[in-house]
Amino acid sequence: MNAIAIIAASGIGKRMQLPGGRSKQLLEIGGFPVIHHTLKAFEDASQVTEVYIATKADNIDLLQDMARSAGFRKVRHVIEGGKERQDSVWNCIRMISDGHSGAGELPDAILVHDGARPFIRPEEIDDIVRLSVESGACVPGNRPKDTIKYIGSDPSCFGATLERSRLMQVQTPQGFRAGMLIDAHHRAAEEGWYATDDAALVERYFPDYPVRIYETGYHNIKITTPEDIPVAEAIYQALL
Amino acid sequence: MNAIAIIAASGIGKRMQLPGGRSKQLLEIGGFPVIHHTLKAFEDASQVTEVYIATKADNIDLLQDMARSAGFRKVRHVIEGGKERQDSVWNCIRMISDGHSGAGELPDAILVHDGARPFIRPEEIDDIVRLSVESGACVPGNRPKDTIKYIGSDPSCFGATLERSRLMQVQTPQGFRAGMLIDAHHRAAEEGWYATDDAALVERYFPDYPVRIYETGYHNIKITTPEDIPVAEAIYQALL
Repeated sequence: MNAIAIIAASGIGKRMQLPGGRSKQLLEIGGFPVIHHTLKAFEDASQVTEVYIATKADNIDLLQDMARSAGFRKVRHVIEGGKERQDSVWNCIRMISDGHSGAGELPDAILVHDGARPFIRPEEIDDIVRLSVESGACVPGNRPKDTIKYIGSDPSCFGATLERSRLMQVQTPQGFRAGMLIDAHHRAAEEGWYATDDAALVERYFPDYPVRIYETGYHNIKITTPEDIPVAEAIYQALL
Repeated sequence: MNAIAIIAASGIGKRMQLPGGRSKQLLEIGGFPVIHHTLKAFEDASQVTEVYIATKADNIDLLQDMARSAGFRKVRHVIEGGKERQDSVWNCIRMISDGHSGAGELPDAILVHDGARPFIRPEEIDDIVRLSVESGACVPGNRPKDTIKYIGSDPSCFGATLERSRLMQVQTPQGFRAGMLIDAHHRAAEEGWYATDDAALVERYFPDYPVRIYETGYHNIKITTPEDIPVAEAIYQALL
């Protein structure tokens, strides 16, 4: 099996304030930018052959240099993202689709991942590739630890309580058979329809293919602000 | 204003395996058991006058000794919990209710808290007391960071995606006007009805009193297994 991974990395450029007035362009864990760890996981996943990254125009050179100096040979394209995350993924999908239409060979699966989730393990990525080819679509998730309630009609108060045993928190990488994901994004772009995530998009256009659950632990967190870094460092140390 | 806090601490006795084959009876953070930090927060909250703890029979002496040696003078009773968490809270409520029926004076509010959430701040506890007296009920929560989906009719697949902007993850301490919480628990005990949390119980019997949202950060986590400890240590260090 072979899969292409799309990394949505438009949000990685938030400036990190450090003690002493210094700042860094990228949030770091264990001395490396978050996105470095993310790319390393895909580099080490045996089922992934190519990585496409969508990011802000300002970060393209930075990410290309990082991939080169780290020896991440799977990084094939670093391109500019779009207005919304879905637009960024769509930009990558068009490039994959165009690039492979000549040879007529699409990959078995396409995975879409948040650049800000550095702790996904290579073997988890490989499992998701396998299950998405098998079932059509596969998405990682875990059980919420807290009770979940709706916000009420008065937004300062709670509404109904959801039945927690029926809920999952979902993450990325979300994996799909390549043709299904390309087709779903194509149709969504035509309609101008935006979904919460790629799974919701595929569910809309391929309702007969339920999305397989891949239950992970609690390490696959999303790191977006400096406040997330102490917890991220702890998870990083625990995973080493 | 004055409030009594009920701490549900039946789950604190899980044995923590340490490197080298040693084990400790209680999970620890920063050299103190999780429950020590929890009790300290309530000790330091100016609106809380008394603390009732419900725990396993085996842990009663241990917690009484801990409270005494730490100088936690608000800990009034450490009693045996019941079969379910709700039974444990009900045991404390009956004791509060009986103890105050003679003098005819209930506290303004009763707070119910998970012993395994050590990072609630004293000033947050005081805010929740104030808001629960003002509105009838107040519960802390924060926004889910991940998309939430239902588990499907086939439990290996996802069902519908929930609208994340309408959801809150809820925690404790959950605060209520004393009479409302006592009455709701009394009626639930008569009916034999069990709720997800105390808020759901009060919502059932006092539907005209919507539960106020108190939005917290992401520090108020629940610590239940040794795997939670590295993240907990990181939050502890960041809060110091």
